[in-house]
Amino acid sequence: MAVSTEVNDARTTRETMCPHRLVLEHITSRWGVLVLIQLLERPYRFSELRRAIGRVSEKMLTQTLQTLERDGLVHRDAKPVIPPRVDYSLTALGREAAERVRALALWTDERMETVLRAREAYDAAKARQEREGARP
Amino acid sequence: MAVSTEVNDARTTRETMCPHRLVLEHITSRWGVLVLIQLLERPYRFSELRRAIGRVSEKMLTQTLQTLERDGLVHRDAKPVIPPRVDYSLTALGREAAERVRALALWTDERMETVLRAREAYDAAKARQEREGARP
Repeated sequence: MAVSTEVNDARTTRETMCPHRLVLEHITSRWGVLVLIQLLERPYRFSELRRAIGRVSEKMLTQTLQTLERDGLVHRDAKPVIPPRVDYSLTALGREAAERVRALALWTDERMETVLRAREAYDAAKARQEREGARP
Repeated sequence: MAVSTEVNDARTTRETMCPHRLVLEHITSRWGVLVLIQLLERPYRFSELRRAIGRVSEKMLTQTLQTLERDGLVHRDAKPVIPPRVDYSLTALGREAAERVRALALWTDERMETVLRAREAYDAAKARQEREGARP
């Protein structure tokens, strides 16, 4: 695909070349998955969501939420109160995404033992090959 | 989770900490998605698969296939013929993964217009905020 040389912003270039690929990346990203699954339960305030997910930095969670909000998956509701209160919830589109991502995450969870056995077999076969290849 | 300090290999550490997360990363990776969806159709030889996917380097495709093979999702069948012939196909587990990943990819494809409209609205709102914020 020809891309105008005037488009210098990397994000814009990638969006032009492969737009739906990027949405897939956003919803299956490390924190994207966890945010979507958490918000399926109910709306969350930022600090609550951060505690619920755990191990995510404030910066990463902010970026993840902004990306999902920009894609129309998450709704950010800033209430004009003191102290400021911001709630995050799924849009209808976000709910569709979250349900599909959760199904995929549950599948990987259920099938993990099979994957671990496959990895062991693969690693053992590789090690055997290397030993045999190392023979004089 | 406590991780032994003796585990120095980064891959092993990540596998120990969050094993099913890694499978999700593999099957939703840029090339992982495309390989799985392509192999749903039929088994492919390496060079055929590379042409079918397009824009993927030999090295990246090799790595992607090895990762999926190690996870037990792809079967590598090296025929003892001259010239060597290697076929790649989905295992039963790989087929389950591929069907779910394809459903997710199709969903992002179908909903792309809604996402693009959301992004336009988000960017316009941001630009408006910045103009208003820039006022004296």
